[in-house]
Amino acid sequence: MKIGVVGLGLIGGSLALSLRDRHEVTGYDVDEAARRAAASDGIRIVATLVDLLPADAVIIATPIAAVVPTMERLSAKSDGAVLLDTGSLKRGVSRYAARAPADSRIVGGHPMAGSTSAGFSAADAKLFHERPFLLVPTERSDDRAMAIAGTVVRDAGALVTVCSADVHDRAMARLTAAPLAAAAALSVAAAQIGDLVSVAGPGFRDSTRLAETPTELAIELLFGNAENARAAITSVIEALDQLRTSLDREDRDYVRSFLEAARSVRKELS
Amino acid sequence: MKIGVVGLGLIGGSLALSLRDRHEVTGYDVDEAARRAAASDGIRIVATLVDLLPADAVIIATPIAAVVPTMERLSAKSDGAVLLDTGSLKRGVSRYAARAPADSRIVGGHPMAGSTSAGFSAADAKLFHERPFLLVPTERSDDRAMAIAGTVVRDAGALVTVCSADVHDRAMARLTAAPLAAAAALSVAAAQIGDLVSVAGPGFRDSTRLAETPTELAIELLFGNAENARAAITSVIEALDQLRTSLDREDRDYVRSFLEAARSVRKELS
Repeated sequence: MKIGVVGLGLIGGSLALSLRDRHEVTGYDVDEAARRAAASDGIRIVATLVDLLPADAVIIATPIAAVVPTMERLSAKSDGAVLLDTGSLKRGVSRYAARAPADSRIVGGHPMAGSTSAGFSAADAKLFHERPFLLVPTERSDDRAMAIAGTVVRDAGALVTVCSADVHDRAMARLTAAPLAAAAALSVAAAQIGDLVSVAGPGFRDSTRLAETPTELAIELLFGNAENARAAITSVIEALDQLRTSLDREDRDYVRSFLEAARSVRKELS
Repeated sequence: MKIGVVGLGLIGGSLALSLRDRHEVTGYDVDEAARRAAASDGIRIVATLVDLLPADAVIIATPIAAVVPTMERLSAKSDGAVLLDTGSLKRGVSRYAARAPADSRIVGGHPMAGSTSAGFSAADAKLFHERPFLLVPTERSDDRAMAIAGTVVRDAGALVTVCSADVHDRAMARLTAAPLAAAAALSVAAAQIGDLVSVAGPGFRDSTRLAETPTELAIELLFGNAENARAAITSVIEALDQLRTSLDREDRDYVRSFLEAARSVRKELS
């Protein structure tokens, strides 16, 4: 297939590298340095966004705020090309699709892979290997669109999971926004012990690692999905309150069953 | 010095291995298999607990429930030997010391190192290398006791931090009990998304890793330090509630300063 990639950072760059052996891949980035880095690694670069068309699929791996504007620029001329984004929230793309040209093809995507590094220099053809990659059908996703998006994902080495935009955004609030909030809350609560925080062992380090999320990304994860994030944080508060109450009434049996329920969730992680 | 070690599991075994080059180390464990494993690794084993005496120091690295009973058996005959335990809570030892024979020497210890493996087979002479090792003076800790305990810790490769039993147990509630509670609460809250929990990325995995703590150890960390654990969980709930409230009022500035406060705590980790 002919596949365009917009945004040659960690995600877009890794997709381009993982797909180029089986497909005709072209890339574009608004940043000249990113274009040069990708070109020096053998990615064919085009001069403007719309030069990625015609194509079977265009992957939109820009920062999340640029996804819908990029789709708007492409969709009028896309001539059946599947527009597949990679943002971590899906309601925005889903809403855009509802008002996009009737003949456009739009599928939401979210690869569950990443790295603390950013930019094309961190890109890795194996980044998605056997990692989940969520696909979210929109009002502009016909069978052909889903089939092409599925091929892109599988040829990148990832595993397809399909769900709706609402289910996706609700799940992400539990899997990313709530853990981020808990990591920050644990850190702030630990500040009250002063210097002794420096003796923390690996458990505390793991539990608070997400507090290192770049601030603007963290704010986007919380405010970009505010209603779901609020519900997820409320669930965590309620669960902590149950533990606290059972400490108060010395109810070891309740705590034991609570811990066993938690452990069974951990067992479901792939 | 002559140093005895009771309890030849991960911690006691690692201390014995790390100290034997510089000191005359003897070991004892109630479990015959543990005694044999240590003997086959060249640790000199004695037949009964009190055969560890006379000594300059006896390290008590038993499960936490056995620490005070072991001290009771040793202290009448200890003849000045420093009894140093390695349990993760310090109030029990501190209280015992207050009623121990007047001529006994007792220091609380807590190495901030560990592993998910257990037993002498997991012991490692480098386990404590440059890790913090908290020392807690008791009513039976004179200068000589603290000096000997300090030498043991430094010769095991660890870094001494001294604090009171109260400060220690309060700090541990923030560094271990609260993260454990948060990990369990995040897992339980995530169960509400059903199968999608299986797509969780590394952030969720790190945040919930402590939910894998063996259940009986987790219950001991919570109920053995219930008052401090309760206060720590309350602090985390309050911090989460502040985040939730600022989401409701769309106060990005507050969230930004909250996240920056959290990040500055992470920076203090050694």
